[in-house]
Amino acid sequence: MKWAIIGTWRMCLEGIIAAAEILKHGGDSGDAVEEAVRTVEDYPLYKSVGYGGLPNENCEVEMDAAFMDGDTLSIGAVGGIRDFKNPVSIARRLSRERFNIFLVGSGAEEYAHKNGFERKNMLTERAKKIWEKRVREISDKNLSPYDGHDTVGVVCLDGQGHMTAATSTSGLFMKKRGRVGDSPICGSGLYVDSKIGGAAATGLGEDIMKGCLSYEAVRLMENGMNPQEAAKKAVCNFSEKLKQKRGKAGAMSLVCLNNKGEWGVGTNVEFSFVNGQEKSGRRKQNGI
Amino acid sequence: MKWAIIGTWRMCLEGIIAAAEILKHGGDSGDAVEEAVRTVEDYPLYKSVGYGGLPNENCEVEMDAAFMDGDTLSIGAVGGIRDFKNPVSIARRLSRERFNIFLVGSGAEEYAHKNGFERKNMLTERAKKIWEKRVREISDKNLSPYDGHDTVGVVCLDGQGHMTAATSTSGLFMKKRGRVGDSPICGSGLYVDSKIGGAAATGLGEDIMKGCLSYEAVRLMENGMNPQEAAKKAVCNFSEKLKQKRGKAGAMSLVCLNNKGEWGVGTNVEFSFVNGQEKSGRRKQNGI
Repeated sequence: MKWAIIGTWRMCLEGIIAAAEILKHGGDSGDAVEEAVRTVEDYPLYKSVGYGGLPNENCEVEMDAAFMDGDTLSIGAVGGIRDFKNPVSIARRLSRERFNIFLVGSGAEEYAHKNGFERKNMLTERAKKIWEKRVREISDKNLSPYDGHDTVGVVCLDGQGHMTAATSTSGLFMKKRGRVGDSPICGSGLYVDSKIGGAAATGLGEDIMKGCLSYEAVRLMENGMNPQEAAKKAVCNFSEKLKQKRGKAGAMSLVCLNNKGEWGVGTNVEFSFVNGQEKSGRRKQNGI
Repeated sequence: MKWAIIGTWRMCLEGIIAAAEILKHGGDSGDAVEEAVRTVEDYPLYKSVGYGGLPNENCEVEMDAAFMDGDTLSIGAVGGIRDFKNPVSIARRLSRERFNIFLVGSGAEEYAHKNGFERKNMLTERAKKIWEKRVREISDKNLSPYDGHDTVGVVCLDGQGHMTAATSTSGLFMKKRGRVGDSPICGSGLYVDSKIGGAAATGLGEDIMKGCLSYEAVRLMENGMNPQEAAKKAVCNFSEKLKQKRGKAGAMSLVCLNNKGEWGVGTNVEFSFVNGQEKSGRRKQNGI
């Protein structure tokens, strides 16, 4: 079987390249997807994920992450966790538990501490400066504070047919303390079933979660749609429904991959993504 | 149009009666569903919701709740909130926000405090004694600590065709600090669309969230199933899938109501529920 992987946004390119190295050598989908997301979390210049992610209204970097295993449907997730280097790895560890798989706030930090995960002050000097500038702008220009919500979401199929998905984000810039978006939520931020395929979302979590977009896309693939049709239909239909019911719809984008390694993307905004697969021997970066 | 309401477990009887009073007099579905859940939260002898709910492993009562509006798909939710009298009311208030609609831990408490919600020490003497006994049993008999996960979940249709759903729980007894279950999660613990119907779940949150059970049941109703078929199919299919993929499935139960006031229930365990509707002029309590 051929491996394949797809992730949201240009920022995951280096992560996808690192994951492809694992997959190329027969590695496991869980290891690959974790590596892809960790690479993004570690890079200080990406403003919406991990180290260097933009802080909440109190200048604290609070992060959400999840990991899902498509063989078992096991999911682990953290919400509003501060000052740990790799939230996605904590989420993966939680996915191995039967109980207490979604931990938030100080409870998530307690678990990570007890399980030996690496502490790190995730606020960079650069992120702090951006925050200070924003605070001034909000007070000077009476701007809406909320901006930026680019989650890294990756879906992966390995050579053994094992599928996984993972997400990580520092969430909405200037969010309220304790705000959790769609990223750690099973069915909204991500969903994967190795017998069908998987999906991961990015955009305004508050709206994505109203439609369980990732679950919906996987369900459409189960009903026979290819990933491109499924991603497009899930986003367009729900975006339309929100406009009817609420007058507007926030940004939402989906990456999808099925268990044959075919992929697709649906979005209602400008969006970039990165995918890699064995077939062509090339890694491609695409924008639509 | 006739009003109708359904809720999980015998414990919601008094709440359903209070809600029926509102609905009978032409009241709004949002007010009725909130009143139903508040009544359960306020009752000290129910061990899995609100005041008197059983605490986590640190003897803290941490609560999850959500409120969803089927006209707009607006959802508000809190996770791991401590010492506020009515989590469901905080969730309803959050559902009116465009951003920051799901708040957890101390951030949720900060929001509730700033918005004037009533503080209350939610740990009763009785719950503390049960916790102390459990701690001794776990150490003496090497028992699995986790037990009890009865969420109150209510779905409601008012005489104007407006549908809502709400949930509230103190979660898994002896859970780890910060553990969040399915109850506050849109699509898992609850889902409602006034043009179709709604569903609410109770059981082992860790397993319910793997299947987005409430969203799935609403989707099946959208495809033409009546609520009984939809509830049964959602639970049975997913329970079977979990057994195939994981060897076992936790307890899960669903109550469903469609926009015609027809209702149904699906469960893989012993389960009770309460429903009321205008048609018969009676309020019925049923157990299956």
